[in-house]
Parts: sequence; C-alpha cells; structure tokens
Amino acid sequence: MLLIKVGGGKTINWDYIARDLAEIVKTDQVIVVHGASATRDEIARKLGVPTKTITAPSGVTSVYTDTQAIDVFLMVYCGLVNKKAVAALLKFGIAAVGLSGIDAKLWQAKRKTAVFSQENGKTKLITDNLTGRVETINADFIRLLLTHGYVPVICPPAISFDNEIVNTDNDWAAAIMAKSLGIKKIVMLFEAGGLLRDVKDPASVIASIKKAELSQYKDLAQGRMKKKLLGAQKAFEMGVETIYWGDGRVPHPVSDALAGKGTVIS
Amino acid sequence: MLLIKVGGGKTINWDYIARDLAEIVKTDQVIVVHGASATRDEIARKLGVPTKTITAPSGVTSVYTDTQAIDVFLMVYCGLVNKKAVAALLKFGIAAVGLSGIDAKLWQAKRKTAVFSQENGKTKLITDNLTGRVETINADFIRLLLTHGYVPVICPPAISFDNEIVNTDNDWAAAIMAKSLGIKKIVMLFEAGGLLRDVKDPASVIASIKKAELSQYKDLAQGRMKKKLLGAQKAFEMGVETIYWGDGRVPHPVSDALAGKGTVIS
Repeated sequence: MLLIKVGGGKTINWDYIARDLAEIVKTDQVIVVHGASATRDEIARKLGVPTKTITAPSGVTSVYTDTQAIDVFLMVYCGLVNKKAVAALLKFGIAAVGLSGIDAKLWQAKRKTAVFSQENGKTKLITDNLTGRVETINADFIRLLLTHGYVPVICPPAISFDNEIVNTDNDWAAAIMAKSLGIKKIVMLFEAGGLLRDVKDPASVIASIKKAELSQYKDLAQGRMKKKLLGAQKAFEMGVETIYWGDGRVPHPVSDALAGKGTVIS
Repeated sequence: MLLIKVGGGKTINWDYIARDLAEIVKTDQVIVVHGASATRDEIARKLGVPTKTITAPSGVTSVYTDTQAIDVFLMVYCGLVNKKAVAALLKFGIAAVGLSGIDAKLWQAKRKTAVFSQENGKTKLITDNLTGRVETINADFIRLLLTHGYVPVICPPAISFDNEIVNTDNDWAAAIMAKSLGIKKIVMLFEAGGLLRDVKDPASVIASIKKAELSQYKDLAQGRMKKKLLGAQKAFEMGVETIYWGDGRVPHPVSDALAGKGTVIS
C-alpha cells in the first residue's frame, strides 16, 4: 500500500501524476492525499476574505480558520481541487473517489478549543479558530474502497469529535492514516526536486537522509518545508519506513520519487 | 430503497432533514441527491462571474456553463453545500459519504456538443457549454456503499464519456439512478409545501396527482417547478411508482412528505 501526498502548489501537474499512477495501481493499492493552499489563497482573495495567519508564542505560524475561512476551505479543497484531481485520474483509467476528512468520518480530529497568538508583542487567546488534530481515521471505509479497486483521493477538512468541520494538518493526518493502515511508504510531491541544500539552487537536492538525522535538517528547511519535516518525523513514529520527497511537476513524478530521484528518507 | 432529492434553496433545513432521516435509515436504504442553486448564484456574484442563462429556441431556459461556471459549480455543489450536508447528517449519526457525479464515474453523461441560444431574435450556436445528460450510473459503487451502511450524498456535476466535467440536470440523473437501482419511491424536498394551485397561496397544496395526468399541471408549475414536472415524468418512465413532493423547511420534512402532507404523485 502506497500513500501519495500531493502538495497544494499551482504548478503541480495532475495529468503527469495520473499517468504515472495508472501504472502503479496495477500492482499496488494507492491512497492519494492532497493540499490546495495556493488556490485557496487565490479564491480567498477574490472573495474578499484573504487567508489570515496566527503566530504562536513559539514562533510557528498557522492559518487562522474562522467560519469564513472554513467555507473557502470547503470550496477549494473539497470542490475545485479535489474534483479536478479525480477527473484527471479518471482520464487515465483510475477509479478515483474524491473524499474529504468529513465524509464517513474519515478523519476525526480533536478540536483545539483555545489557541494563543502573538500580536505586536502581546499574547492573545483565540477561541473561534476551527482547527484540530486528526486522532482517528475510518480505516474500514478506506479498506472497503481499496479492496474493490477504488483509489481514495482525500483532502482536509476533518470532522471534530463534536461534529464540527475543522481545518487540520495534512501531513499529520497522513501519518495517522499510515499507522491505521500499516502503510510503510509515503511519496510526497511538491514544487521542488526534493529537500534542497541551498534553497536558491534547484540542483542542490539532498539525495538521502537517515531518519535518525532528520532533526539536523530543520535549519535547511524553509517555510512550509519545516512543517513537512515535522510531518515526516511523525510518520516515522507511526511506523512508516521510507518517505520519498519528489517533484510534482515532472513527467513521472511518483516513479521518479520511488526511484530515488528526489530526497529519500529512511 | 428511498431516494431523497433536496432542492438548492437557501431556507432548506438540513438539520431537520438529518434528524428525520436518522429514523428512516434504521429500516430502509437511503440515497440523497441535492442541489445548491441559490448558494451557487450568490458565490458566482461574489466572484464576479454571475450565473448566465441560455434561452433555447423552444423557450426553455438553462444555465450557461463555461469553464468559469464549472469552477463555481465545483466549489459550491461539491464543496460548500455537499460537505455541510454531510456534516449535518453525521451529527445525527448517519454514516454519510459526500460524492459528486464525477467520483467513481457515478454519473456518466453524454455531453451536448452544440446548443442553440435565442438572443435578441437571433439564433446563436454555443459550443463551449459544458453540459450533458446522464446516461449511465455506477450502480455497483452505490450498492457497495449502501450494503455497508453508508448513505451516499450526491450532487452534480457529472463526468462526460470523454472525461470532461459537465453540468447536468439533477432530476434527470435521479431518474436514471432510480432505474438502475430499482428505486420505486422518490421524495423531493423544496421551499414550498408541494405543488401549489395558486403560487401566491402557500396553503393551496394539491394533495395528489395521478401520474397519467401530470402533463395537465404544466401550466400551474412556475419557473423551476416546470423542470421538476419533466423530471417526475422521466422518473415514472424509469419505473418509479410514487413521487412525494414536500417541504424542506419543516421539522419532519421526509416523513411528512411520505405521510402525504405535500403532493403525492402516483
């Protein structure tokens, strides 16, 4: 069983991913999880409710998700991006089924009821932030789909234990899925060739990293990549053996990543 | 097996529908199909791409669906409205799974490659209208879900035989589903008590109509209701025995409709 995590960048090529996966699904069960952050920010701006971020006292930033942001989230992740991804996969003969973490309680999350935010040197308590961390997944439902030849294409949001729609960290959710389903390999595709030694030099891909040494790379990782490093660490804690970071813009994104053309962490 | 078709009006109460269905799913298999036209028009306006209509030479109007309109469609139907409906059903213990006609090729449609439009007395040929008529459904997938206790919550768009995302008539799709799955009863909920003898008098609900006499009511039906009459006729052709038109805003919308409180056509 293979979990493919596709980033939410604008230049990710779903046709390439679909054509590549069409071969892979012949011999392996595949689950796809995807983001949509670039399109979300674009639509949020057009709707006049631009994406806002919160900076925690620890310095980590995250998306501030009020009810308006949840609506944009539902529209872009579950609607625009998920269904276009499904259509791309169908075109190459893959029996794709688009789902959110809400459907069949696929991703159940514990809502964070209070979050602290750092603003102009002051710490503020935020209570209307609709976010949570996935704790339980509906593994039976995923197995039901896989057993019958369907490929689940999953995106956030998740559903809280109190049935609220909540934003959630995708990489964390992928790690929890890996544990529940016994997944040993995760392919993560984004808009870079892998983890870069020098962010300005696309050719400086680090070919392999030992999972025990992952924390040493925190300083190299910029912005969103920092979160991906944390997600990778979580995935290893959940029993994953190898994570392949690869380029989601090239003609054979999945097989290239599996062949070690990006960054392999094991 | 019961098919519930929920209209796309703003005052439809999904919590009432969910609470009512929670009882019904204990003894019967349920499929939900829904619209989202009111929210679609609202979001389309906000995004600066207001919904446009085409008037056919026959006088029938329909939504003009270019690529921008498809994007809004995906966002509102598959995202915003579908997932909130699913969350409402989950809250009342129903194992709801939100799907579009695209997923698993649930609704396969024949694309209309050319449509004629009447504008200022001239007839225009429109070739970029992404619409189609559902001809085939993935009945195996729906049965798989139902057999395992899941309630499919389905919305347009559909997928064409050439894998294009196409807008489609919901009532027609429901009729095709009814035939493939052997459904005999359809409940249709909207923002009225039933078919009204006088559109200005909400109390003038016509209690029952014989299906053979359906065409006589065409003059009574206003706007969208005209299409619903055609949809009902199609459903009867497809083997449906009874259609219940009821109010989607009242505390027991489904059981009231089944108890004959709206308009029963049989």
